[in-house]
Amino acid sequence: MVQAQQPQASPPSQPKRRRPGQDWKAWPQYDAAELGLRGYWYPVTWSSKVTGTPQRQTLCGEKLVLIRDGGEVYALADRCPHRGVPLSLGRQEFPGTLTCAYHGWTFDLESGKLCAVLTDGPKSPICGKVVQKTHPVEERHGIVWVYLGDGEEPHPLDEQLPEEWRDGSFVLGGSMQDRRGDWRYACENGFDEGHAKYLHRTSLWRLFRTMPTWNITSIERQGRWIHRVQKEVHFRDEHSGLGVWTNYRWWKKKPPERVFNIGNVGDLGKPVHPVIGRQEFPGYTSISVPGVLRVVYPDFIHYEWWVPTEPGHHRYVGIMIQYREGLSTLPFYLKYFGGIRWFFHGQFSQQDEWMVGETDAPPERLYRPDASLTAWRKLVEETTTTHEAARAAKARRQDYDV
Amino acid sequence: MVQAQQPQASPPSQPKRRRPGQDWKAWPQYDAAELGLRGYWYPVTWSSKVTGTPQRQTLCGEKLVLIRDGGEVYALADRCPHRGVPLSLGRQEFPGTLTCAYHGWTFDLESGKLCAVLTDGPKSPICGKVVQKTHPVEERHGIVWVYLGDGEEPHPLDEQLPEEWRDGSFVLGGSMQDRRGDWRYACENGFDEGHAKYLHRTSLWRLFRTMPTWNITSIERQGRWIHRVQKEVHFRDEHSGLGVWTNYRWWKKKPPERVFNIGNVGDLGKPVHPVIGRQEFPGYTSISVPGVLRVVYPDFIHYEWWVPTEPGHHRYVGIMIQYREGLSTLPFYLKYFGGIRWFFHGQFSQQDEWMVGETDAPPERLYRPDASLTAWRKLVEETTTTHEAARAAKARRQDYDV
Amino acid sequence: MVQAQQPQASPPSQPKRRRPGQDWKAWPQYDAAELGLRGYWYPVTWSSKVTGTPQRQTLCGEKLVLIRDGGEVYALADRCPHRGVPLSLGRQEFPGTLTCAYHGWTFDLESGKLCAVLTDGPKSPICGKVVQKTHPVEERHGIVWVYLGDGEEPHPLDEQLPEEWRDGSFVLGGSMQDRRGDWRYACENGFDEGHAKYLHRTSLWRLFRTMPTWNITSIERQGRWIHRVQKEVHFRDEHSGLGVWTNYRWWKKKPPERVFNIGNVGDLGKPVHPVIGRQEFPGYTSISVPGVLRVVYPDFIHYEWWVPTEPGHHRYVGIMIQYREGLSTLPFYLKYFGGIRWFFHGQFSQQDEWMVGETDAPPERLYRPDASLTAWRKLVEETTTTHEAARAAKARRQDYDV
Repeated sequence: MVQAQQPQASPPSQPKRRRPGQDWKAWPQYDAAELGLRGYWYPVTWSSKVTGTPQRQTLCGEKLVLIRDGGEVYALADRCPHRGVPLSLGRQEFPGTLTCAYHGWTFDLESGKLCAVLTDGPKSPICGKVVQKTHPVEERHGIVWVYLGDGEEPHPLDEQLPEEWRDGSFVLGGSMQDRRGDWRYACENGFDEGHAKYLHRTSLWRLFRTMPTWNITSIERQGRWIHRVQKEVHFRDEHSGLGVWTNYRWWKKKPPERVFNIGNVGDLGKPVHPVIGRQEFPGYTSISVPGVLRVVYPDFIHYEWWVPTEPGHHRYVGIMIQYREGLSTLPFYLKYFGGIRWFFHGQFSQQDEWMVGETDAPPERLYRPDASLTAWRKLVEETTTTHEAARAAKARRQDYDV
Repeated sequence: MVQAQQPQASPPSQPKRRRPGQDWKAWPQYDAAELGLRGYWYPVTWSSKVTGTPQRQTLCGEKLVLIRDGGEVYALADRCPHRGVPLSLGRQEFPGTLTCAYHGWTFDLESGKLCAVLTDGPKSPICGKVVQKTHPVEERHGIVWVYLGDGEEPHPLDEQLPEEWRDGSFVLGGSMQDRRGDWRYACENGFDEGHAKYLHRTSLWRLFRTMPTWNITSIERQGRWIHRVQKEVHFRDEHSGLGVWTNYRWWKKKPPERVFNIGNVGDLGKPVHPVIGRQEFPGYTSISVPGVLRVVYPDFIHYEWWVPTEPGHHRYVGIMIQYREGLSTLPFYLKYFGGIRWFFHGQFSQQDEWMVGETDAPPERLYRPDASLTAWRKLVEETTTTHEAARAAKARRQDYDV
Repeated sequence: MVQAQQPQASPPSQPKRRRPGQDWKAWPQYDAAELGLRGYWYPVTWSSKVTGTPQRQTLCGEKLVLIRDGGEVYALADRCPHRGVPLSLGRQEFPGTLTCAYHGWTFDLESGKLCAVLTDGPKSPICGKVVQKTHPVEERHGIVWVYLGDGEEPHPLDEQLPEEWRDGSFVLGGSMQDRRGDWRYACENGFDEGHAKYLHRTSLWRLFRTMPTWNITSIERQGRWIHRVQKEVHFRDEHSGLGVWTNYRWWKKKPPERVFNIGNVGDLGKPVHPVIGRQEFPGYTSISVPGVLRVVYPDFIHYEWWVPTEPGHHRYVGIMIQYREGLSTLPFYLKYFGGIRWFFHGQFSQQDEWMVGETDAPPERLYRPDASLTAWRKLVEETTTTHEAARAAKARRQDYDV
């Protein structure tokens, strides 16, 4: 599925074999990133699911064992270096450690150091000489976040969370689901300008609101986010030789046939959402690296993380938040469990899941609304560090096959 | 499974590593044709099964979407060029078109041209610039036939149907089944002189008729058909050191131990089947390209098509016809649904299915009755156009693996 | 999984990419022997299971058909040379032969010679010109043993059976199970000094006997066997910074914390087991090629054969014997079926099955008790004939993939 990388300097005489836009050569790092981008924090599971019993997770093609000890969550590579048995089959024999089920190799959770070998006595010569790979872990907002890097010191998790999460004065509901489909297809589907108007026209989530038929959209960058800004919205068209196409239904609110100049990125910074009452974020559909979507609704903010797991698979993390505290959070939970969870994180999102699972590109033939896709790919290309990182990821993926 | 093709001119000093007959090098096009022969009409499904709801079919390794519109059946490549989603997941939004489920790309069924993109407005710049591959389709005798070529104008379907089908004054019953096994094994099994006498000796279809034990057979070509002409038929043998072998059973009709000079291809053209009363076909078991068997019984004619689908799989199309019209077709249906369907297109044919699924050649070690197999391979080799076609098919098969 | 073989003479300048002990380059034949060692007898099934109905078995990657005729068991390659159909789908039409289900090719069981072709008459020209590969078979102690070689005359089965089996005055119970995991992982697990003390600490088989925590062990060779001789046994340790580790339980017999100088291989030959009353075997856990374990208990002797079947799979053959005859065998059967079968050949052994199925090495990181593993690998390396045999096995494995 992954295409060969563009050579550093390709001879000019070499014939082009594909039309532009049909492959991913313009985005070599993105093309190579089948197993995700290194050097980021990823949401892996709910905090409440990690206990003293080791738990297996796959993140960016790496098998991890998660375990909670003394209130903290630890993540280690899930392969005992002795004979390759998963550490997640083991158990905790001493506080602060995890012991392999096979020969009792016991690793310190904090450092990964082999601190005891129960079947080789207290003076086992191998103790201290083997260090198991560990990954930085943070818990925030009830979610376990793991930093997937290559040994470097991670940046603070807060730098990577959406800016509006920092003070934490909100209530949150969400759903995590393992899904088929390359994580990049999921990102592209999420930020895609085009499909919602056709694929989701039958979603229950839009039971009373009419979907547009097509838009003119501008993609504008602001810091680490790119935003989809609507310039025109159309609700009814005449297709010559075919007939009228509209998403109007008699029982739905009927917007005008077209709306122009809805807003522009110059409005950024203005308090567009009185309910939320915050200046610092815009009010558009936005995406940032390593694959996070933000959609601002009048009352809520919706997020999606698409977390790479195995090749061709990802984990969908759908989150809905509202700026409420204390007793006033009750209506949020009622609304979330009474509807959002089933209609939005459920049926609506499963339409996406269906298409992401069926997508098979490149080759591909892009059209005008795919400007959102290419802007996203460009963002990844500019944001991720070096080609080397991508090559490393590619090499790692080949190991995976063996 | 597919062997390398014989080089155009092999140096005489090169050592032979297999005994003659053990591989398929003598039939390089046949050897390469794992996904079938290009440039032929194939029966794909029953007419009654194709409606306005798109239907997925695989033919010669190509995924197709079939749909009926205005009474006609259309076949298009089942992959939206935009992002690779199957068109068969879509639906018909306007007459004469098919719309992809994901972004509303709408293709004209006749020409394959992208005629509207519902999510990009009536003036979408990509309209008319993308053409989806289409395949010629015909309906005849209640069956949908698709021409699998490489863009050339197809020959008329009637040229390829058995000659005796042309006036259509017959009644027809049949069964289509997806089966495992390379389509070539199925062809070879169908025209095989040898196996029937042993494998099928226990079939209910032959409950009252004794199978021969072995024959002397001549394979004779007449136009595009080759015929199996029996010269001798044997019903009882003494195998030295082992004992007597016969298919005689006390309750079955007991033919003489051996019969000589039963007929020869010189009889072709004589009206051998009074019930059918036709001159133009012989009365033997015959096969023609791209894989059609004809067996003439006193009262019926039986046909089998083995249609390549995916590597290692084919579709069995068993058809029984009788030259009857009007009210006199009733006994045919009684006989077909009262017996033929269960005993012949059922248990008898499933013995073949079993062996075709287990066959694994080359390497192989041919014996005297396999003259029928090699004649069939030779027919394919002489009939199919060029090595290039076979090479193309082979290349296509490699794409399939990716 | 299989690593490249060590080059005959590697240039000294070549950089080492793995730390010593992390791959299997030191044991090139062992490394190549994914499909087992050629030139040995293997237990394949129980005698009582082989009847006149052909039976399929896979041994060292080769598919075999077993059949009993005139009291004798025969083993032939399970692929008809004609068209590749398994002979095990056929049946016996004449005594001393097996007939293929497809075309009635009939093979002499003793010689493998094609002695009749039922669908080509008694004078079929191919008769006598095709010889099917046969394998030497012996039955001993109720087990069918097949010699897997390359056509050479096999050594006598008795030379390969444990020495104490020769007079046969014992009673035997056992269990054969198809298991996942490379046969070498199973051998290494079986002779492994380390894992029992941790993995099996929860086994019901040791319900009343305390497992040690670790041992000092010496591996000593005697003829074709290597023995694990305990020098020290420890039952309780203090791991600094962690705490006490012991397998003591209040309801189990409590051995002393450590025992020194338990025995040494100089004791070999002395009658260590009064119940068995025999001089010729030692009393230790021992292993020999091609993968047989012997564990001597005060009252019983336990054996395990790990028989290579397909890549990544093996057959576990667990046998328990006792030197009793006549009426005195009754208590053995009571004990075997009342306990040993469920606790030892059952739950205890399934703990091993679990780990063998999860093992994934190399790479690996060996520790002190793995001296037993490396001694076993060295034994294989010294015992098996030539690199050529291993290379042949490797080549055969590649055929298997095709």
